[in-house]
Amino acid sequence: MDLNADLGEGFGRWTLGDDEALLDIVTSANVACGFHAGDPSTMHRICAAAVTRSVAIGAQVGYRDLAGFGRRRIDYDPAELRDDILYQIGALEAFCRVAGGRVGYVKPHGALYNTAAVDEGQAGAVVAAVSSYGLPVLCQPGSVLARMAVAAGLEVVAEGFADRGYREDGTLMPRSEAGAVLHEPADVVARAVRMATEGSVEAGSGRAVAVPVSSICVHGDTTGAVELAARVRDGLVGAGLAVEPFVRPS
Amino acid sequence: MDLNADLGEGFGRWTLGDDEALLDIVTSANVACGFHAGDPSTMHRICAAAVTRSVAIGAQVGYRDLAGFGRRRIDYDPAELRDDILYQIGALEAFCRVAGGRVGYVKPHGALYNTAAVDEGQAGAVVAAVSSYGLPVLCQPGSVLARMAVAAGLEVVAEGFADRGYREDGTLMPRSEAGAVLHEPADVVARAVRMATEGSVEAGSGRAVAVPVSSICVHGDTTGAVELAARVRDGLVGAGLAVEPFVRPS
Amino acid sequence: MDLNADLGEGFGRWTLGDDEALLDIVTSANVACGFHAGDPSTMHRICAAAVTRSVAIGAQVGYRDLAGFGRRRIDYDPAELRDDILYQIGALEAFCRVAGGRVGYVKPHGALYNTAAVDEGQAGAVVAAVSSYGLPVLCQPGSVLARMAVAAGLEVVAEGFADRGYREDGTLMPRSEAGAVLHEPADVVARAVRMATEGSVEAGSGRAVAVPVSSICVHGDTTGAVELAARVRDGLVGAGLAVEPFVRPS
Amino acid sequence: MDLNADLGEGFGRWTLGDDEALLDIVTSANVACGFHAGDPSTMHRICAAAVTRSVAIGAQVGYRDLAGFGRRRIDYDPAELRDDILYQIGALEAFCRVAGGRVGYVKPHGALYNTAAVDEGQAGAVVAAVSSYGLPVLCQPGSVLARMAVAAGLEVVAEGFADRGYREDGTLMPRSEAGAVLHEPADVVARAVRMATEGSVEAGSGRAVAVPVSSICVHGDTTGAVELAARVRDGLVGAGLAVEPFVRPS
Repeated sequence: MDLNADLGEGFGRWTLGDDEALLDIVTSANVACGFHAGDPSTMHRICAAAVTRSVAIGAQVGYRDLAGFGRRRIDYDPAELRDDILYQIGALEAFCRVAGGRVGYVKPHGALYNTAAVDEGQAGAVVAAVSSYGLPVLCQPGSVLARMAVAAGLEVVAEGFADRGYREDGTLMPRSEAGAVLHEPADVVARAVRMATEGSVEAGSGRAVAVPVSSICVHGDTTGAVELAARVRDGLVGAGLAVEPFVRPS
Repeated sequence: MDLNADLGEGFGRWTLGDDEALLDIVTSANVACGFHAGDPSTMHRICAAAVTRSVAIGAQVGYRDLAGFGRRRIDYDPAELRDDILYQIGALEAFCRVAGGRVGYVKPHGALYNTAAVDEGQAGAVVAAVSSYGLPVLCQPGSVLARMAVAAGLEVVAEGFADRGYREDGTLMPRSEAGAVLHEPADVVARAVRMATEGSVEAGSGRAVAVPVSSICVHGDTTGAVELAARVRDGLVGAGLAVEPFVRPS
Repeated sequence: MDLNADLGEGFGRWTLGDDEALLDIVTSANVACGFHAGDPSTMHRICAAAVTRSVAIGAQVGYRDLAGFGRRRIDYDPAELRDDILYQIGALEAFCRVAGGRVGYVKPHGALYNTAAVDEGQAGAVVAAVSSYGLPVLCQPGSVLARMAVAAGLEVVAEGFADRGYREDGTLMPRSEAGAVLHEPADVVARAVRMATEGSVEAGSGRAVAVPVSSICVHGDTTGAVELAARVRDGLVGAGLAVEPFVRPS
Repeated sequence: MDLNADLGEGFGRWTLGDDEALLDIVTSANVACGFHAGDPSTMHRICAAAVTRSVAIGAQVGYRDLAGFGRRRIDYDPAELRDDILYQIGALEAFCRVAGGRVGYVKPHGALYNTAAVDEGQAGAVVAAVSSYGLPVLCQPGSVLARMAVAAGLEVVAEGFADRGYREDGTLMPRSEAGAVLHEPADVVARAVRMATEGSVEAGSGRAVAVPVSSICVHGDTTGAVELAARVRDGLVGAGLAVEPFVRPS
């Protein structure tokens, strides 16, 4: 089972989350590539640290929207979106090269993640860009992106969220609904372990839902989040699981 | 003898120069990489067109300054400058990969070109970035950048300017001086041919100065400039020179 | 009758259209404010030139999207959109002050124009921003923005497009349909004159449709467009109309 | 005596310092205007909060360099720098208007502060921009900017730094020298009080140096800094000084 987290999401003078602490916990680092967050020197530093720790490096690609942190849907022309993604993957590849590693996978960020999960135009743009590199795509199981990536011959790695409520169809509950976010650490850890060992989750309705994930996403933008990520990892290890990246780390 | 020109220096809705026309004239395309100019879709298009025409592709790297077109000196921390350059080279590499080509060399743009010609900090940043790729550097002969690149084991390709006045020490006359820019097409062509065949130029003082160049830089941001570039090429061919890139184009 | 056009839509090294020529034709200048296009020095120059010619100055406000020229819909949070618009109006006001003028009205640009015509969230954001200044809004008659601006007590100035095909409901034909754009200068001029004198236009179906406009929008991003704009002005003058701004120019 | 601090220096998702806490301590808020830091919604929020607390609002203007946080010297053309500053003042004015306040003064940020203190070109650009508004300039006493602002008829408000070491000529010790930054809270408070009551400071050499300041700058980008700022304020009040803005707050 893989543990992934978003890293390098600062920009210049601004930082976000504790990248160093997370790199000791996760097995895959989704590195921001400069469009929604991330700057070249941060990318350089994260790639070097990830290679040292045998953490896999993924291109966390997003919209060109620093002011909105890539969280506002933008109606991109698909060809332009494809090119923006290619640009970001290439840029990250430079720092992987310097660090003696490589870009191991691609994960869309924020509004691109959500839009590509349901919109064929944007999902197709992601697939077109990633196909040039033949990399795995880390995304939500059952999404339009997952389906189109598989159709294009790409490897799809399904991820789950240990701290989020699920609906019976396997999609996430909207954040506006009660129960959409789990706050109790023990619940989060239990959910992660069940996802990893049984491939299922208890939906808000109480029914068991299949979520066959190969990676669990943890967050790190608060001190509590880093500690929670560590507990999720400990929970997985305690359950006898090998916590390791889904791609060769370098 | 190689002919190089800056290409892809538009941004989004804005264009600059006639990229298509220049690609039929030059043998090396200095492609803007998005920091001073250039956007991903333009980079994509130029790389594809360059590979089709067997034109070599170079990373025209610049300061992060779209508003200033990379023409204002910025007092960068050298490590940050190195990382900004690595980022740009990597981004361009993505589009070369898609087009079936590769980044063949690096040429600094604007204020970075001028600063790296005299400043060890910024020249060192360029050299550090380019060393990770082991690429040739296209720059001014006799510059600090040229010297440091050679010392680092990089190939240095010296370029000359057919439409600029030279001083006796082989440096360019400042644009503020009379004679700094040649306007008469016949003079420009003659200067290019002499540079290419004899490796020399007549300085403003009238004295012959050695300028052992392997590439001649032409411009394309006006209609007249494109025509002049074509005449320079014709002049070189007419003088019996092979006009070809200094690196394998793909 | 007022004639308006988008001006100052370059950015730094890049220019778009012939601002100087248009300033001699139009009575209202929609000045780009730096978010989709426009830079401070261009804004300064345009404002000074507009005041000299007694051309009214409007804030042409857009999304924060230089790469997309403000033409891609962005799902803004309304409060953030309102603040982005306030910022742009204020910035333009600085150059009006220096020139001895003032911001006379606001016109949304590109995807904001189109979205605010149909979306209450974005229209409300425009209205909220403009209400702080109590300025007129230049927009499409019958749009959600027009309706909400009127409801908020703002003056709404309806504009028409002399070179576009109309549907029977008074909205523009989509550019993908035949007849959506008029290319024949005489047709464009005739349409402008009829709009201005009769307040109506012949829809694609042949039926006369009421379009009670107080301003006609002309374009200037090609040489032909500038000439066409001049012919539209001449046509209006020839029809006995006073061609003048709808607000006091300074 | 006035207490000023930099506020609103986040950008979008990123925050810096505790603006709310500082607004309860300082009497003048130097609000970042979007070029080196600051976004429209943050500016809106800070202006509203400052007006509520009767804190004066200043335009903290900087270079257009989000990636470098305005800390890298840029060789601007003076006219372009003037226009970039005008743009920022105008933008801030919009949020002051909404909040029922006004821009009360201008303080350059980072590399612009340092460059305008010694460079006539950049100082002149600041003076030219501020002269259009007739506002006071908050800057270092004895600087080129202070001299040129006075010559232009602007009010100059001299500021001192309670946590910095001074040289005998009244300038700050470079941060690379021992004693350049005071870390002991009691020393900082004592220095502030002496500056405010006697108009002098003990230089690194031990000699008393005249620093006739009307404002003391405090920082807020760490928790400790906020507490220190509060202690400086308490110290001034305890010494019988009226702690109040140098301009009418709204």
